[in-house]
Amino acid sequence: MTESRRVPIAILLSGRGTNMVSLVRAAQEGGLHADVRVVVSNKADAGGLLLAAGLGVPTAVLSHKDFQTREAFDSALADLLARHGVEYVALAGFMRVLTPTFLNRFPRRVINIHPALLPSFPGVHSQQQALDYGARITGCTVHFVDEGTDTGPVIAQVAVDVRDEDDEDALSARILQQENALYPRALDDVLCGRLIIEGRRVLRAREAAGC
Amino acid sequence: MTESRRVPIAILLSGRGTNMVSLVRAAQEGGLHADVRVVVSNKADAGGLLLAAGLGVPTAVLSHKDFQTREAFDSALADLLARHGVEYVALAGFMRVLTPTFLNRFPRRVINIHPALLPSFPGVHSQQQALDYGARITGCTVHFVDEGTDTGPVIAQVAVDVRDEDDEDALSARILQQENALYPRALDDVLCGRLIIEGRRVLRAREAAGC
Repeated sequence: MTESRRVPIAILLSGRGTNMVSLVRAAQEGGLHADVRVVVSNKADAGGLLLAAGLGVPTAVLSHKDFQTREAFDSALADLLARHGVEYVALAGFMRVLTPTFLNRFPRRVINIHPALLPSFPGVHSQQQALDYGARITGCTVHFVDEGTDTGPVIAQVAVDVRDEDDEDALSARILQQENALYPRALDDVLCGRLIIEGRRVLRAREAAGC
Repeated sequence: MTESRRVPIAILLSGRGTNMVSLVRAAQEGGLHADVRVVVSNKADAGGLLLAAGLGVPTAVLSHKDFQTREAFDSALADLLARHGVEYVALAGFMRVLTPTFLNRFPRRVINIHPALLPSFPGVHSQQQALDYGARITGCTVHFVDEGTDTGPVIAQVAVDVRDEDDEDALSARILQQENALYPRALDDVLCGRLIIEGRRVLRAREAAGC
């Protein structure tokens, strides 16, 4: 990558971190103008920690079980990220709801990816929800995180067809492929200031981008 | 069209009947194995009535205002369709919720089209709902009608991108194009027995179709 601006970010996860890998690789290969300062898990045994270390990214564990309240955990988490100089936060399978204690430290700077076309199928097991509903089209959504569960303004979406023969694993795998491609692209639009937020609508800025 | 089976249907509308026109044309051109016996409006001034007459389809008006209860209207409506030998009912902008009094007369034989990817944006003004939400993808859904509002099993869906410059009219027009193409195709799958319903999932039947 040429010497253009790289925005310091953290990636938070609780599991295997597939989307984390796609973000780190995109940052290393130049498609994402990010400097991944730290990958943080709230679970010490998250597979994503080893993958991150293998990619040369610093890792940290901050267990929510070590804190009496959500706010205390969120405050410690924000402090940890601040010490790494983080400006934006990307969630990649981070299974904790963040409170305003955290979000107010990174206003409109926390981004998540969800395996459904929100507002359809929020919360957990979105792919199985789509199958149970009998949806013929589902997909994935990159969105800003607010205090609700999967309710923040939508940055980008991709549609994925549901096939008759799909079970949860098959559908999840096909959505995940799209997630891995979409997330770096959408996050780059955010980091480079290519977007403006008007109410809930996230539109492409007319001004030149910052990267 | 060659002499294959044509299923007697009715189309119900309350407005201009764009989807009615696409269904009637598909039936006349052979893409839809339907014999449109009657187009019924609950409003005497619905633009769709003139269009239907212009296409050579019998029309009828049954005003809900002439009935004291929903059930009385629904019963009269079912009687009217029965007199025309109707087997399946396609809703095309019909702005009345049908009660079990009607639905039980045509079990799993009432089909509707909705301008959103259900379960997102049910009810009215779906396109504006999608814009207000900031969705980047919306679309349309053909579904079986049950007692809820836009809650029946999904037959087919098509995705439509939301553009930054979209207002309600522009987005509605682009979705409507997809509706006009999708509805005859999806309805034909139903009429020809190409589908099986497993719980809420509507799957392609393995047996040969009936048309």
